Amino acid sequence: KKHFKIAVLPGDGIGPEIIDSALKVLDVVAKKYGLTFEYKFGLVGGAAIDETGDPLPSETLKICKESDAILFGAVGGEKWDNLPTDKRPEKGLLRIRKELELFANIRPAKAYEPLLDASPLKPEIIKGVDLVVLRELTGDVYFGEPRGREVRNGERVGYNTMIYYEHEVKRIAKLAFELARNRRKKVTSVDKANVLEVSGLWREVVNEVHADYADVELEHMYIDNCAMQLIRRPKDFDVIVTGNIFGDIISDEAGALTGSLGMLPSASIGERYAFYEPIHGSAPDIAGKGIANPIATILSAAMMLEITCKVPEAARDIERAIEKVLEDGYRTGDIWSPGTKRVNTVEMTEEIIKRI
Amino acid sequence: KKHFKIAVLPGDGIGPEIIDSALKVLDVVAKKYGLTFEYKFGLVGGAAIDETGDPLPSETLKICKESDAILFGAVGGEKWDNLPTDKRPEKGLLRIRKELELFANIRPAKAYEPLLDASPLKPEIIKGVDLVVLRELTGDVYFGEPRGREVRNGERVGYNTMIYYEHEVKRIAKLAFELARNRRKKVTSVDKANVLEVSGLWREVVNEVHADYADVELEHMYIDNCAMQLIRRPKDFDVIVTGNIFGDIISDEAGALTGSLGMLPSASIGERYAFYEPIHGSAPDIAGKGIANPIATILSAAMMLEITCKVPEAARDIERAIEKVLEDGYRTGDIWSPGTKRVNTVEMTEEIIKRI
Ligand SMILES: CC(C)[C@H](C(=O)O)[C@@H](O)C(=O)O
Ligand SMILES: CC(C)[C@H](C(=O)O)[C@@H](O)C(=O)O
Repeated sequence: KKHFKIAVLPGDGIGPEIIDSALKVLDVVAKKYGLTFEYKFGLVGGAAIDETGDPLPSETLKICKESDAILFGAVGGEKWDNLPTDKRPEKGLLRIRKELELFANIRPAKAYEPLLDASPLKPEIIKGVDLVVLRELTGDVYFGEPRGREVRNGERVGYNTMIYYEHEVKRIAKLAFELARNRRKKVTSVDKANVLEVSGLWREVVNEVHADYADVELEHMYIDNCAMQLIRRPKDFDVIVTGNIFGDIISDEAGALTGSLGMLPSASIGERYAFYEPIHGSAPDIAGKGIANPIATILSAAMMLEITCKVPEAARDIERAIEKVLEDGYRTGDIWSPGTKRVNTVEMTEEIIKRI
Repeated sequence: KKHFKIAVLPGDGIGPEIIDSALKVLDVVAKKYGLTFEYKFGLVGGAAIDETGDPLPSETLKICKESDAILFGAVGGEKWDNLPTDKRPEKGLLRIRKELELFANIRPAKAYEPLLDASPLKPEIIKGVDLVVLRELTGDVYFGEPRGREVRNGERVGYNTMIYYEHEVKRIAKLAFELARNRRKKVTSVDKANVLEVSGLWREVVNEVHADYADVELEHMYIDNCAMQLIRRPKDFDVIVTGNIFGDIISDEAGALTGSLGMLPSASIGERYAFYEPIHGSAPDIAGKGIANPIATILSAAMMLEITCKVPEAARDIERAIEKVLEDGYRTGDIWSPGTKRVNTVEMTEEIIKRI
């Protein structure tokens, strides 16, 4: 397959600017590797609320469902912060994940040699870090029922349900071992099995799936310990697999290690659909100024080339171009340091394209 | 009040060794400040399982309920790792918290100048860090009902309930603001209100309680963002208040920042009881060797002197002695670095006592 339908959802804040960069890079790569992309644009998040009252309009969902892959920018902003939970931009994101059954969120965190200085960690701790957090994305306390707010015995109460079904754990565990096979062959499964029954099931099923992957090492770690070890010895991790809420926390912690949020891509995949987005937010403070770092979005597009289009060479090509640009000293404001060349979004994109 | 009944629960692994150190220090401080302590020893954790089959025997609970304060070592070890959840050493800990209504866990994380090198963070990031995580300890998914494992439609499922009642949030929020008043007057409340109803209630009640503490600054932060910011700018935090499971994760992450787990004390308090323990575990690998770092336990005893005995001067006295010992270059193995003097548990304890 050489032709792909891409749903493009720029979203809010810097979303449109960084998506624009990713599309420019994709155009170049398409020519080089004989691919064609058909883009359909959709509204999402605050932008969609403003126009339709719904953070995920049915038209957008339709575009996504007819796509081979979805390229997503970012959503949210102060303007929509005081809306009730089910009207917020975030709800659009959660509904896409659920409706398209994007059960696996893949979040690489890699330390780039020229950016080691940007890390809050000592160079000897961060150097060489190359891990992936694999977060389950359609289950757990995010979607568990019952959930709600009510009054019991005259006082307010709020509750959610942390829940996992066997099949949900099975498919994410399988993917974790598959990923690890193409990497350093180690999976760390993170849970709270010393306290939670839901984690007891998680651990049991992960162990069962492991039986088919004897070549991959499996270790179990409690979430509190993992939060600690990620800082103390991040290099020791290869693939971390965990549930939705623990994964939300751990993947952001892992992202912070490198110190450059503007560099972190992600893929959220299911049996049928795939969704690619930078992990950083919509950064309303710098929106519209043309200075956002487009690299996370461009790397997300590279993940699309590898996972959806199955052209890993094209992904490697982009990754190498980005590494080269960094080595050559180009930096957007967020990763700039004295002695390097400050560039804006468009310039950074052009420098990357030149090297593809 | 000058006389205090202390329940002493050494537990497993290095527990007995470090508790021994804390008692030696307390004896000295008692003389100096005219206090008397009456110690009653109780079995807990694996040690209790081996003797009675129960991680928290009723005799131990009785001793605790007749005490002014409980000094706890550590529990757990490989030997008991494969017991079912409700028979594990950890269960003893959870039951003490619940039975004594120890709803507030106070976990300071402080960067000691002579130990800055031990941190995985760059010196300029860790230097000056002085924060407290205040974790709610008797609610949330740890104790929420319903919980369990079962088979639904032919597949296994595991579930727990994340739940907060208004009064639970109110009392911990109050304590957060009180703590902040004696510190840098800033509270960061951590939740996941953009997704969870239980967090919606949390945030609402924290805001209401804040109305009585106009002199304290309140900020709200999502748990994923907090996991990130703790690494990027730990100095910006003063008091972090959060629920039981988020607090479990965040307090361990905060503990990892300084790089010296052997230095971190904690207090768990309720209306009537108070419980003091080092945050590190039972370290079975070094148990019985006499080389464990007793400082976290001694600092926990200092918290007892301040919170239960209301003799803050005595607490400061211990803290200063410890800082002095560090400045003078004494280190147990866990915090040792070239150029410093390696000492064992007993020697470290003696050096501290000399300086009180
Ligand atoms: C915006 C929010 C609902 C979302 C999540 O919690 O999943 C975000 O934090 C993420 O990680 O993509
Ligand atoms: C041992 C375990 C049950 C406990 C917890 O999760 O509360 C521990 O991690 C802690 O933080 O004291």
